[in-house]
Amino acid sequence: MSHPATRFETLEVSSESGVLTVAIDRVPQQNAINGTLLAELHTVLDEAERLPGCRQVVIRGASGVFCTGMDFSDAAGSPQSVAERGGAEFLGLLKRLTTVPVVVVSVVDGRATGGGVGIAAASDFVVATPRAVFSLPEALWGLLPCCVLPFLIRRVGFQPAYSMSLSTLPLTAEQAYRIHLADELAAEPELFLRRLRQRVSKLDGATIAAMKRYQRDLWFLSAETERAATDEFTRLMSTPEVRERISGFVTAQVFPWENQR
Amino acid sequence: MSHPATRFETLEVSSESGVLTVAIDRVPQQNAINGTLLAELHTVLDEAERLPGCRQVVIRGASGVFCTGMDFSDAAGSPQSVAERGGAEFLGLLKRLTTVPVVVVSVVDGRATGGGVGIAAASDFVVATPRAVFSLPEALWGLLPCCVLPFLIRRVGFQPAYSMSLSTLPLTAEQAYRIHLADELAAEPELFLRRLRQRVSKLDGATIAAMKRYQRDLWFLSAETERAATDEFTRLMSTPEVRERISGFVTAQVFPWENQR
Amino acid sequence: MSHPATRFETLEVSSESGVLTVAIDRVPQQNAINGTLLAELHTVLDEAERLPGCRQVVIRGASGVFCTGMDFSDAAGSPQSVAERGGAEFLGLLKRLTTVPVVVVSVVDGRATGGGVGIAAASDFVVATPRAVFSLPEALWGLLPCCVLPFLIRRVGFQPAYSMSLSTLPLTAEQAYRIHLADELAAEPELFLRRLRQRVSKLDGATIAAMKRYQRDLWFLSAETERAATDEFTRLMSTPEVRERISGFVTAQVFPWENQR
Repeated sequence: MSHPATRFETLEVSSESGVLTVAIDRVPQQNAINGTLLAELHTVLDEAERLPGCRQVVIRGASGVFCTGMDFSDAAGSPQSVAERGGAEFLGLLKRLTTVPVVVVSVVDGRATGGGVGIAAASDFVVATPRAVFSLPEALWGLLPCCVLPFLIRRVGFQPAYSMSLSTLPLTAEQAYRIHLADELAAEPELFLRRLRQRVSKLDGATIAAMKRYQRDLWFLSAETERAATDEFTRLMSTPEVRERISGFVTAQVFPWENQR
Repeated sequence: MSHPATRFETLEVSSESGVLTVAIDRVPQQNAINGTLLAELHTVLDEAERLPGCRQVVIRGASGVFCTGMDFSDAAGSPQSVAERGGAEFLGLLKRLTTVPVVVVSVVDGRATGGGVGIAAASDFVVATPRAVFSLPEALWGLLPCCVLPFLIRRVGFQPAYSMSLSTLPLTAEQAYRIHLADELAAEPELFLRRLRQRVSKLDGATIAAMKRYQRDLWFLSAETERAATDEFTRLMSTPEVRERISGFVTAQVFPWENQR
Repeated sequence: MSHPATRFETLEVSSESGVLTVAIDRVPQQNAINGTLLAELHTVLDEAERLPGCRQVVIRGASGVFCTGMDFSDAAGSPQSVAERGGAEFLGLLKRLTTVPVVVVSVVDGRATGGGVGIAAASDFVVATPRAVFSLPEALWGLLPCCVLPFLIRRVGFQPAYSMSLSTLPLTAEQAYRIHLADELAAEPELFLRRLRQRVSKLDGATIAAMKRYQRDLWFLSAETERAATDEFTRLMSTPEVRERISGFVTAQVFPWENQR
């Protein structure tokens, strides 16, 4: 199996021994999520489904940043498009990570912020290196991590998800491991990835698909949850306070919390 | 912002820099909960909602006791009134803690028993000092921690809540931290409180309210749960075994477990 | 109270001071579960309910094996009977452990595999010794731990149950303790058992029953979940891949993962 033919704008993709590795590569934009990144991640998952022996997708960041969530500047002037991208489109990606019939592993080696925490939370496994930092600063913008929370709650339980989003305080790798936001804490993620691949390569794609479907069905979140998540995000994005903070950031690079006190 | 004008019988209340601090102050009664305490806690939450810059309420105990739950002697001769206070009224307070648009922090420096565990569990954050001890002795009375459990399960998950209430064994501060009944373990709670205040002071009240509402809606407990909790508590309070144990305690200070074997 | 009169084929049963102790004793079959074992465990629970002072049932293994799940060879030639035993019948046992009005403790001193993890997960308390190992290898057979998962999720939360069953990687006693699959980690389980017995002997049977019922009702799993579990297990057992793997094992002792790569 050689490198896939597709060219990507926001990702570095390679494949080896049934494992497709994706590095998010928008370093000048702190690996923030724009429409292209969302579309290209779907393309990679399409390829993973098509490649006959592929059982594992590994998502990485670059240069000490995993992913810092929605790119506000990308959608300057159109809060509508940010609302859609951070709402239904982003939720669609997270949902796909939890249903695609391959094992998805996020390797967080640096900052994971907002939607970046969502990508990790929706992954089947998360490996954090000692320099990983996880945070949900949405509330400081007057927003909530609407689409992240359903996946974060299923991963870490109610209270850790709640306290993280209400306090907005960052979590170290150790703290993330303590609450099971990271399944493994490792300076060398390759050891765990190899150990996992040895097991996962022995599974049928159909078994992985059945596992994901069955466990999703056992959990209490539903299609109604998804509607609630995107509705709440759309509502918040349309408030004057949030619009003002985003445009202040886009035009003058002022973070909302620098404006106060 | 100066001290609120209201005078309290069961609480010491002070306010500083957007933080309202409440010390439960019924030390001769081991900080047990009576009707006055419930009413006064609501009054403090009313004030917190009214004070313009207030974003944080801190609940403390006194003299090595946080709160020891329902005051049985206070309602001697009227199991009906204990049933109501420990049922619908107490549930109403816990529910309010999880909906009031300020951040609620419990600082547990000593014993938290029965309903006292409920107040901690329903708080947004819990800081425990090394001398904190948490226990649910209800089953020894023939009761269940009916109103505590919905809030405890959401905070710590099913099994830790279950094993704590079925075994009736007390938890040390370390053990409480391990199961996330305490978010922080600190000999000096002030450091965490200050760090939290710095963040929380940057949030809108509307954002805190939206966070609490959205996360409550994501969780699986419902109005039906609340009815089940108060119904079960009322049922248990009306059994002859429970009535006898409570009156034995009220008249002769005999704990039910001293009567057996 | 002396030894119960009933004779058992697959269990060693003894009773002392209100505690009924059951050792699974099919060592040549690695303590795998067959129809007789399921029936005899129900008989022991019947006895526990009948014995007036009995408040605690302790389930143990033997010779470094707790229980290794369904006995495939026992049902050779009849996938139908394995499907029923591993489906509705096994679920019925796990459900009974969570409703029987005595406190059920599993002492895992060695291997707990597949359905053996289910028995532990459905117990009120789990004590693991340092040589305990927990694993869910079902996916390697093309199966899912359908009936185990509802009980495992309620005990450890979604993510630990999910990652354990998707990775098929075994957990050490330490790791099991970390995710609350074990409540206690002890080289000498007797200390914890005695401490628990002192408490539990003070509870009414009716209180234990009410506790189990009330907490089950608070949790989100329902009769619908049970149907989903047995339906999915029956579906998977009828696929050609699974039938072939089981018959390969029964006839030639070949594990499915030895057949590949």
